[in-house]
Amino acid sequence: MTHKIITAAALAIGDELLSGRTRDKNIGHLANALTQQGIDLVEVRIVQDVQAEIVAALNALRARCTYVFTSGGIGPTHDDITADAIASAFNVSIDHDARAMELLTAHYTSRDMEFTTARQRMARIPSGATLIENPVSVAPGFKLDNVYVMAGVPSVFQAMLENVLPTLEGGAKMLSETVHCPFGEGTIGDRLGQIQKAHPETSIGSYPKYDGEKFFTQIVVRSREKTNQDAAVRDINSMLSELTKND
Amino acid sequence: MTHKIITAAALAIGDELLSGRTRDKNIGHLANALTQQGIDLVEVRIVQDVQAEIVAALNALRARCTYVFTSGGIGPTHDDITADAIASAFNVSIDHDARAMELLTAHYTSRDMEFTTARQRMARIPSGATLIENPVSVAPGFKLDNVYVMAGVPSVFQAMLENVLPTLEGGAKMLSETVHCPFGEGTIGDRLGQIQKAHPETSIGSYPKYDGEKFFTQIVVRSREKTNQDAAVRDINSMLSELTKND
Repeated sequence: MTHKIITAAALAIGDELLSGRTRDKNIGHLANALTQQGIDLVEVRIVQDVQAEIVAALNALRARCTYVFTSGGIGPTHDDITADAIASAFNVSIDHDARAMELLTAHYTSRDMEFTTARQRMARIPSGATLIENPVSVAPGFKLDNVYVMAGVPSVFQAMLENVLPTLEGGAKMLSETVHCPFGEGTIGDRLGQIQKAHPETSIGSYPKYDGEKFFTQIVVRSREKTNQDAAVRDINSMLSELTKND
Repeated sequence: MTHKIITAAALAIGDELLSGRTRDKNIGHLANALTQQGIDLVEVRIVQDVQAEIVAALNALRARCTYVFTSGGIGPTHDDITADAIASAFNVSIDHDARAMELLTAHYTSRDMEFTTARQRMARIPSGATLIENPVSVAPGFKLDNVYVMAGVPSVFQAMLENVLPTLEGGAKMLSETVHCPFGEGTIGDRLGQIQKAHPETSIGSYPKYDGEKFFTQIVVRSREKTNQDAAVRDINSMLSELTKND
């Protein structure tokens, strides 16, 4: 049985993520949301606010994956260069977009705020893009080909993603079952490797945890077929019963 | 005045980071530690437990940066393939290392635990590498050329990094001053852009924050020269006084 595989990459943009000043909160959120939809996040990159860096990373990721999601750099200040970098990566023009100007004009007029040149910067959208609605602070993200360009502020990123998720093609969902293992990886490693070999249609991950005193392990069995997953979990449980008996 | 620039990249390895199952805790920690030492973290990648992915990312990053720090994939189970991938990237052989075998033999003997084939896997070290001590759980990391290979478990990663940091060449320290700005980016964007232009030897970052009701901004002025930094901060404070007066 073959399954449709849909892949994605994340590109987080911003010096503040690399200086340690801000801890990224979008990647983990995106990873969870995509996994739930059967989309495999296969790579993440974080780059500086430097056009050549953004362009190079974006072009590598969009060639590789079904979808690319960017976060950060679409605000109104001089260091917000994502939209221009995306236009450059796609080799398309960029200008103030009529739809975005309309949204933002209405927003600032209703609040009796000046629609400054800086704020107009948020209406710069590459040619050919469609807008991603921003229910939090109006300034839109955009989609160009397979690339979704969204804000870095987590509440805005999440709101934009909510709008995008229903439009994505989901893949066959990856099932995941966690088996708690009271032993460290060294105790189970040999036999777990054999179990993985016996169940090649599953992906068995082994995640060491350390509680400050001793190691234990979380074993995660992933598969797109329930019967394959169940068979591997059964073998792992047999191994653990036997080890517990001999402990 | 010129300053020595030392750059670094991080490569986090592991399916669990991309599925959303585990949120990475090492990148933010590393970013802070490097910044304090005057080393610029310029890129981060997260890749799957797939040898070709690890090799490609590692080779790109080690060619680009002074230092590369990897996390994850050096444990005893079948999905721990980082050491083999590093050897492949450097095109060197890999085998059980005598020093690592000695450390681990002593450790397991003292605890009356079997030194299983799985545990011996943790002694596989690429030829030419030096070991990085692991005070938490003994199994060492290693350094090969400009690449530092460390564990993914945060407590172990941090302990290994503590051992590595004093050996790194630090660069001219990047100074950073944050100016709290009660206005949103749209209000300050135009003038902040002008201030950035007037102070090209500083890097002025503008970070929008949203408290659930309104936006405010943190303006961060970074420079390797205190006088340059101070001059830009003065101009920002003048701008903010004027805006507050007119508010």
